[in-house]
Amino acid sequence: MGSLETERTTTGWAARDPSGILSPYTYTLRNTGPDDVFIKVICCGICHTDIHQAKNDLGMSNYPMVPGHEVVGEVVEVGSHVTKFSVGDVVGVGCLVGCCRNCRPCNTDHEQYCNKKIWSYNDVYTDGKPTQGGFAGSMVVDQKFVVKIPDGMAPEQVAPLLCAGVTVYSPLNHFGLMGSGLRGGILGLGGVGHMGVKIAKAMGHHVTVISSSDKKKVEALEHLGADDYLVSSDAEGMQKAVDSLDYIIDTVPVFHPLEPYLSLLKLDGKLILTGVINTPLQFVSPMVMLGRKSITGSFIGSMKETEEMLDFCKEKDLTSMIEVVKMDYINTAMERLEKNDVRYRFVVDVAESKLDQ
Amino acid sequence: MGSLETERTTTGWAARDPSGILSPYTYTLRNTGPDDVFIKVICCGICHTDIHQAKNDLGMSNYPMVPGHEVVGEVVEVGSHVTKFSVGDVVGVGCLVGCCRNCRPCNTDHEQYCNKKIWSYNDVYTDGKPTQGGFAGSMVVDQKFVVKIPDGMAPEQVAPLLCAGVTVYSPLNHFGLMGSGLRGGILGLGGVGHMGVKIAKAMGHHVTVISSSDKKKVEALEHLGADDYLVSSDAEGMQKAVDSLDYIIDTVPVFHPLEPYLSLLKLDGKLILTGVINTPLQFVSPMVMLGRKSITGSFIGSMKETEEMLDFCKEKDLTSMIEVVKMDYINTAMERLEKNDVRYRFVVDVAESKLDQ
Repeated sequence: MGSLETERTTTGWAARDPSGILSPYTYTLRNTGPDDVFIKVICCGICHTDIHQAKNDLGMSNYPMVPGHEVVGEVVEVGSHVTKFSVGDVVGVGCLVGCCRNCRPCNTDHEQYCNKKIWSYNDVYTDGKPTQGGFAGSMVVDQKFVVKIPDGMAPEQVAPLLCAGVTVYSPLNHFGLMGSGLRGGILGLGGVGHMGVKIAKAMGHHVTVISSSDKKKVEALEHLGADDYLVSSDAEGMQKAVDSLDYIIDTVPVFHPLEPYLSLLKLDGKLILTGVINTPLQFVSPMVMLGRKSITGSFIGSMKETEEMLDFCKEKDLTSMIEVVKMDYINTAMERLEKNDVRYRFVVDVAESKLDQ
Repeated sequence: MGSLETERTTTGWAARDPSGILSPYTYTLRNTGPDDVFIKVICCGICHTDIHQAKNDLGMSNYPMVPGHEVVGEVVEVGSHVTKFSVGDVVGVGCLVGCCRNCRPCNTDHEQYCNKKIWSYNDVYTDGKPTQGGFAGSMVVDQKFVVKIPDGMAPEQVAPLLCAGVTVYSPLNHFGLMGSGLRGGILGLGGVGHMGVKIAKAMGHHVTVISSSDKKKVEALEHLGADDYLVSSDAEGMQKAVDSLDYIIDTVPVFHPLEPYLSLLKLDGKLILTGVINTPLQFVSPMVMLGRKSITGSFIGSMKETEEMLDFCKEKDLTSMIEVVKMDYINTAMERLEKNDVRYRFVVDVAESKLDQ
């Protein structure tokens, strides 16, 4: 492996068109360059974004496309400049595999905000070839975008942390919301929301789940450990909770009014959007002025924050709630995910699906 | 003065109905209580809000109403518990004259965010009587809401600082935007905007004025000292300025799109709204997520910040650009202000208008 003469291939499951249906697809991987890590995939989480990309919902899809950006794997080869990783290490790869390394975000360890960032899949790498994601036997990834999984963490538990987990951890870290005793809200209880409850609880926060229905109330309170549960249509409950939260992590990926949630925030409270919504959101200016509230957003997290988040989750013995499936179940899993029929993240057991054999 | 037996009166100029036309009106002042300061008004700035209130634009007006919340006066009597002020002191009064003193904002010196704050006029004081503002011969104000004007500052120069000045100073202070070398934008060049340019320049910022036309370009660059001037309809100029500003203070008090201005902000940049706009404002979530930008707002400033701001302006020898008028010109001044026909703030010379004689 790794010599310039050999063409190395891997097999993944790719979408071929906007139907978004995935099927086996074999493609060439680049050789392991000096800064590259060659990874045999162990497992990979399924994120809502994978569906959007596979179905061309954002109008930017190129096919064939192998999705997957919550990847845990084992290092099988490292390039000559790679010092952080050794063969046999269990490592993770998230949403990004490249950045310009020269702009202000890159120079301040915020490569996720680089305008020239390269996505793990459905993007073009520096060699001109399409990037392909983690629903595949192997990946070759620049070491900058690889993180070591702390010893003792189960790969399938870690997978959802690499996107959903860091999506929640990063804004809490950046906005100074890590201290215990804060009161947080998690709006929407999907993959990101459930990690939000877990991580905020592990930080010692009082956590209120805010949802459009009471369907997940028992789960939120009893299984995930939330302290409170608010149904957004319950006018009385919402009124009682006015001016009570330091932050809300808003994970809802479709249009919704912001004012009911802004009103739940205390002075200087923050409404942190994590869902890409192309329909304009609305608010009236007194809702932010009278209380100096902020509407802000956050996009995954930096590699540095991803490492910190993994250490934090290891230290807190934090686990995700997942349903592990095989590769040949992925189309069903994506259908179920679209209907929100999963508690709370599908993780594909890629290794046991034996794609590269 | 001050004995319980005497009813003390003052004469102000009051609006009587939603025409907003002001005319002389004589009313009773409360006696100087233990915590009160009795003030003979020297001058008072005219703010856009005065017009909104006088004309019942916000639907909350009570008449007769004496507007005016940028008040500079001389202390003529102090209550028995008043230690901060002495007869003869030159003092200022801004938008507020009361708060609950018991909530979280009040307990952390953020009384401007108290839900029970009492406005300087068009509100009801703790004694059940209407509050009346600074377009009057005298006011009686609780010492908590009175600030000492630093020696050597001209009263008419100080008046606009008490609302417009602190409206700009407070968010720059709170959001950690006081350091020199920052790049700021001032959106809209009215009373608040012109103070924004002055204060941001005094902090050592690179200041860009953003306006809907180039009418004020020469003034902004040559008289106010702005470094740059952007016309929002100039697509090329706006494109060149993308990703260049640490903050924008948005002083526009009517509906406007936010996205062109969000795009001017750098990573972690802040769009700070200071204008009350009841028409919903809009944005799409990727505009804040991809760059971790914040849409936030700020409402005047605390008494503590007002004092700090006055010291800052004294130290920097900062002056406002004003047009001083007499009380009998106020209706014309308000008409002109509505048409934005003033550079940049009217200040009424109340003392020379001899209302209480």
